[in-house]
Amino acid sequence: MKMKREGILVVISGFAGAGKGTIVKELMNRYDNYALSVSMTTRQPRVGEVDGVSYFFVSKEDFEKNIAADGFVEHACYCDNYYGTPKSYVEKQLADGKDVILEIEIQGALKIKELYPTALLLFVMPPSAQELRKRLIGRGTETMEVVNKRMNRAAQEADGIEQYDYIVVNDTIEVCVQDTHSIIEAAHAKPIRNEALIRTVREELKRMAKGE
Amino acid sequence: MKMKREGILVVISGFAGAGKGTIVKELMNRYDNYALSVSMTTRQPRVGEVDGVSYFFVSKEDFEKNIAADGFVEHACYCDNYYGTPKSYVEKQLADGKDVILEIEIQGALKIKELYPTALLLFVMPPSAQELRKRLIGRGTETMEVVNKRMNRAAQEADGIEQYDYIVVNDTIEVCVQDTHSIIEAAHAKPIRNEALIRTVREELKRMAKGE
Repeated sequence: MKMKREGILVVISGFAGAGKGTIVKELMNRYDNYALSVSMTTRQPRVGEVDGVSYFFVSKEDFEKNIAADGFVEHACYCDNYYGTPKSYVEKQLADGKDVILEIEIQGALKIKELYPTALLLFVMPPSAQELRKRLIGRGTETMEVVNKRMNRAAQEADGIEQYDYIVVNDTIEVCVQDTHSIIEAAHAKPIRNEALIRTVREELKRMAKGE
Repeated sequence: MKMKREGILVVISGFAGAGKGTIVKELMNRYDNYALSVSMTTRQPRVGEVDGVSYFFVSKEDFEKNIAADGFVEHACYCDNYYGTPKSYVEKQLADGKDVILEIEIQGALKIKELYPTALLLFVMPPSAQELRKRLIGRGTETMEVVNKRMNRAAQEADGIEQYDYIVVNDTIEVCVQDTHSIIEAAHAKPIRNEALIRTVREELKRMAKGE
């Protein structure tokens, strides 16, 4: 008897430069159980960004209508622009048994845990702070001012790590992607995610014990 | 920076016939991170049982001395014989970074969770009650009376499944052993089992943020 597997809402956070984006991309490429949630935003698309892939780009009015209709899993406002995770896509994918990945920062992650207590919160961290700095500099696209700003931000974000369910140390990407996938697979084996199976086997055992 | 990995105390329970013994044997054969705890008992050795492998066979007097010295992780009395898990072996292996496997029933498992809150409790179950019955009959070593007794016992034990951290469905042994190993590996990624790493990276980030 195979039970349909319930999808898990997987929230991935971590310091800028820790490798979240690469991990998410590799999970999507290698395994077929994942769906990536696309955020909605009111900010202008940058060069190369595609509507529906990078973000859903909408007007401020449409975004606010969606807030009023309780249409977001979480949303926030940065620099006068809204960003949010549309609820309809997430819930449809979960119902289809997909593990839905959201890449968001800690405040959003904690809001999601409140709304979906069975969500799985993963924090991606580098093996050391030195290594994080090296990677940020190695990108070659940022000024030292931006690198330092990101390091300061990381120092603040580090206070929230214990609120996550799991940490993923990104030492080598290959091992790290496998580790992340194992953590998500293991989460499917929690009793709370197998209530139907447990109930069925239990009832069957009790019927047999009664000689039915 | 590699932190020394802390060992996890892994408790494996499950219905008779669900395949616990095979899973444990395969984990020990395939991976090098496990140590199997050997129980101590006052019952007589059966033919083929080896002292220090099957059990540590001791006198009632010695067992009771060990109880008095707080030398057991858990112990119980069945049919006038004592059975217990010696604490010294478990703690030595954990300190060495080994994941220590204990194969015990639910009362013992819950006692261990009290004493070691970070212990990982796994419950092995068959894909269905019918399958469990088939396997018990298939052993060919038990009378139908014994098979029925075990099915009744399973019906009672089934009430405790939700108290375990994870369930492992033993459909095919190959997949099941891998699943079990993944669950244990994932448990190493809990923040509580990486306190030293988190603290070190956090302090390093804060020092860098201050420009030290």
